[in-house]
Amino acid sequence: MAKQIDLNCDLGESYGSFQVGSDEQVIALVSSVNIACGWHAGDPLTIEKTVGLAKQHGVGLGAHPGLPDLLGFGRRRLHISPEEACAYVRYQLGAVSAFAQAAGIPVQHLKPHGALYNMAAVDYPLASGICRAVASFDPSLILLGLSGSEMVRAAEDHGLRVASEVFADRAYQSDGTLVPRELPGSVITDEETAVRRALQMAAEGTVESITGEVIPIRADSICIHGDSPHALRLAQRICEALAGHGIQVSSLQNVLS
Amino acid sequence: MAKQIDLNCDLGESYGSFQVGSDEQVIALVSSVNIACGWHAGDPLTIEKTVGLAKQHGVGLGAHPGLPDLLGFGRRRLHISPEEACAYVRYQLGAVSAFAQAAGIPVQHLKPHGALYNMAAVDYPLASGICRAVASFDPSLILLGLSGSEMVRAAEDHGLRVASEVFADRAYQSDGTLVPRELPGSVITDEETAVRRALQMAAEGTVESITGEVIPIRADSICIHGDSPHALRLAQRICEALAGHGIQVSSLQNVLS
Amino acid sequence: MAKQIDLNCDLGESYGSFQVGSDEQVIALVSSVNIACGWHAGDPLTIEKTVGLAKQHGVGLGAHPGLPDLLGFGRRRLHISPEEACAYVRYQLGAVSAFAQAAGIPVQHLKPHGALYNMAAVDYPLASGICRAVASFDPSLILLGLSGSEMVRAAEDHGLRVASEVFADRAYQSDGTLVPRELPGSVITDEETAVRRALQMAAEGTVESITGEVIPIRADSICIHGDSPHALRLAQRICEALAGHGIQVSSLQNVLS
Amino acid sequence: MAKQIDLNCDLGESYGSFQVGSDEQVIALVSSVNIACGWHAGDPLTIEKTVGLAKQHGVGLGAHPGLPDLLGFGRRRLHISPEEACAYVRYQLGAVSAFAQAAGIPVQHLKPHGALYNMAAVDYPLASGICRAVASFDPSLILLGLSGSEMVRAAEDHGLRVASEVFADRAYQSDGTLVPRELPGSVITDEETAVRRALQMAAEGTVESITGEVIPIRADSICIHGDSPHALRLAQRICEALAGHGIQVSSLQNVLS
Repeated sequence: MAKQIDLNCDLGESYGSFQVGSDEQVIALVSSVNIACGWHAGDPLTIEKTVGLAKQHGVGLGAHPGLPDLLGFGRRRLHISPEEACAYVRYQLGAVSAFAQAAGIPVQHLKPHGALYNMAAVDYPLASGICRAVASFDPSLILLGLSGSEMVRAAEDHGLRVASEVFADRAYQSDGTLVPRELPGSVITDEETAVRRALQMAAEGTVESITGEVIPIRADSICIHGDSPHALRLAQRICEALAGHGIQVSSLQNVLS
Repeated sequence: MAKQIDLNCDLGESYGSFQVGSDEQVIALVSSVNIACGWHAGDPLTIEKTVGLAKQHGVGLGAHPGLPDLLGFGRRRLHISPEEACAYVRYQLGAVSAFAQAAGIPVQHLKPHGALYNMAAVDYPLASGICRAVASFDPSLILLGLSGSEMVRAAEDHGLRVASEVFADRAYQSDGTLVPRELPGSVITDEETAVRRALQMAAEGTVESITGEVIPIRADSICIHGDSPHALRLAQRICEALAGHGIQVSSLQNVLS
Repeated sequence: MAKQIDLNCDLGESYGSFQVGSDEQVIALVSSVNIACGWHAGDPLTIEKTVGLAKQHGVGLGAHPGLPDLLGFGRRRLHISPEEACAYVRYQLGAVSAFAQAAGIPVQHLKPHGALYNMAAVDYPLASGICRAVASFDPSLILLGLSGSEMVRAAEDHGLRVASEVFADRAYQSDGTLVPRELPGSVITDEETAVRRALQMAAEGTVESITGEVIPIRADSICIHGDSPHALRLAQRICEALAGHGIQVSSLQNVLS
Repeated sequence: MAKQIDLNCDLGESYGSFQVGSDEQVIALVSSVNIACGWHAGDPLTIEKTVGLAKQHGVGLGAHPGLPDLLGFGRRRLHISPEEACAYVRYQLGAVSAFAQAAGIPVQHLKPHGALYNMAAVDYPLASGICRAVASFDPSLILLGLSGSEMVRAAEDHGLRVASEVFADRAYQSDGTLVPRELPGSVITDEETAVRRALQMAAEGTVESITGEVIPIRADSICIHGDSPHALRLAQRICEALAGHGIQVSSLQNVLS
């Protein structure tokens, strides 16, 4: 059987009259989408429209809950308790699921957004709060989290199906964690290099760390951005490279089964 | 079989540190509760707590969606389209349902809040938007709306189960609609009179209009307030009067079956 | 002395990561700008940046307060009292003024936004609420409102300096009020016609009503949009037409003096 | 001349229909009030009413800006940049000042709220951002911050007048900083002890640290709470103790002059 990997992107990040993103272009490249739930971005009509787009393209639909910080697009760390994280994720997951149900398509996964994603990657109790929300709502949902993170560990401990996400344009430390953005070399700016790294992670399950070692990394899904012409081109090139090496892009549902 | 009627009240209207209401006292008097969904009032932790309270008391649980106007408590008319009403109600219904599911209890009904309730009572397209949200989510849900209103008519047209709500402390016009609040005599301030009217609506399905005629009125549920000592006492007296006349207080689910 | 008219446009409508508008392009065409105050659009960093842009271009700076409806961009009617209108405008005017003060430039005017503008145009008590906020803050501020509206009348009654705004691309009724948007012919889609009408209002103070009569109309400022390539081109053409006829574009401050 | 000290309390923390606090009771005990600015609490009508209350009682009026976190009452740490802190404080200070101006009373001081207060106490760049906002608005304003904190140091460096705040019911470390709330003994629960400590700080400028040393502490203002009967009683007792020892309660304006 051909090797498979999922490509995922954030979608539905407009808010009322504030239209952002190139949803129609980027969705054509991916197999799973993470839909903003109205807290850091997104609103009910946008969710409705985006769920329709996901249905039309036959991609895996995910809820993408964030912190209650529309002004900061959910990218600023806000200190919340695990109980708050659980309740906030439950609320947003329920809300987006109602739109999926109305459209007659299932929710495939949940991926925390922005600062919530980053905090849960290193904070096991917070990650557990998120997992409790998912498990109580639908234990068959897939939790999509940073490869090798506390989020992934917590999801496994909660008996959830879990998918590990990797980044083509980010450097890794030798323990498999991301090099923090504020450090030099944390972002891979060379397109060629990013494509090659994506391919290696997908095909071989390894990546070269910033210190030069080849380390194992679990890669169920590659994160794709579509918020700039540059990002769209990189996404397109990653797709081509995967296809050229016989790696099939398929939804998380298929990758994990 | 004994005559039955539902008593409903709004619940879970706190927001973060802003604690309001006497939820623990008023829930003891009613058979159904309408839980604020986080837009005009309520927040995820409050919803969680309130759903737990509903479970503990064994009352019928309802979603109580409102307009996106926390500052105005959802009581100010905001001109939204039927499509917006549908999406807003779907979002809030989904969110609250996730908490009911986590607690292992079903959602029984939905009652629009405040200005949304009042606008939908006289605006058939808007009421239809609300009904579409409910029908697509769970066609077995009960829509609780103002007796004799467009909301009730729309719910019937959408094939929903529908419950008619009456008010003990409001005057009715001879066509069965409420006397607008800005008109003299619209609110019944005498406790004795309010209790007597509640009893007559429950027992006989009639009410004396402001012009003195006895008119038929469908009464599946009486609206109860618990936001003041006065309101709580009126609620208590209505309960006693119903009991004294052999009318059983029971959830909407039972009243409609 | 050469005839003068002001051109005004809305500016600073981004919100956090939600970037909208072509502020840098449209500001080059106008003499006054209306800065969103953070309620329907805009946020503190955006206000700061936009005030800086206004200073750099030497245009008249105005506060552009709106309804508390970020989701609806302040375009949906929300029923608020005159007291609420006064307090909401006072709050937003104070907030934007603090940025003007920090930048060392004066606030020239205030123009209500969207639904607040439209409601105040026909609701004298609401318009008066707005005027009270302006008069108590700085009685030398100019109120920019719809020509011939209740807003203008209320501002005059409050002793404020008032400027009358006209629209090149909207049809007028014979009493000088705008043809409602929902009626056919309300919007002038032909660019040539819009330019000609702008010129006639600026040069002669008259406009042809939808019923074909030439009526007088006070035109201190023409509203300019920059939210699409089409709008920008129309704005450019109006500027050229005014210049070609010796009409000077100058800030409200100068037009009124 | 008699020794003087200021007593300050937070005020105007209601939000729309969410009524909180015992503003009318606690204002009678203090000489300065910190008015919530609409972000973590407060709204325009509440600000208007609270400014009126401050005027009526002749107390020093302060702006009390907070983080954009109404749900968390501004008590949760949100990672914002110094530039954001500056813009957020400028916005809120401008807004509240407009109400003071309308009421014809001056703004005396600014005190950051909740998590913003706590973060600025230990983060000099953040504290500097706050100071820039104050200095550019009105360099004669007093900055009220935690005694011995980075906030106080930054305010001095910006040439602002600065007042040092102490807490009767909190334990201090031997370096003059507060014992963190999560540590045992951080809160003084014995009323008698709290009163005695308040008195010692006001009269002698010293306090006994948690390790038993008597350390110097600058005390221009004591923080008073009125959000519970217990808090109100403590406040009342502190007032009496001060009066009994000939220490005059007077506004910051007077204490600093």
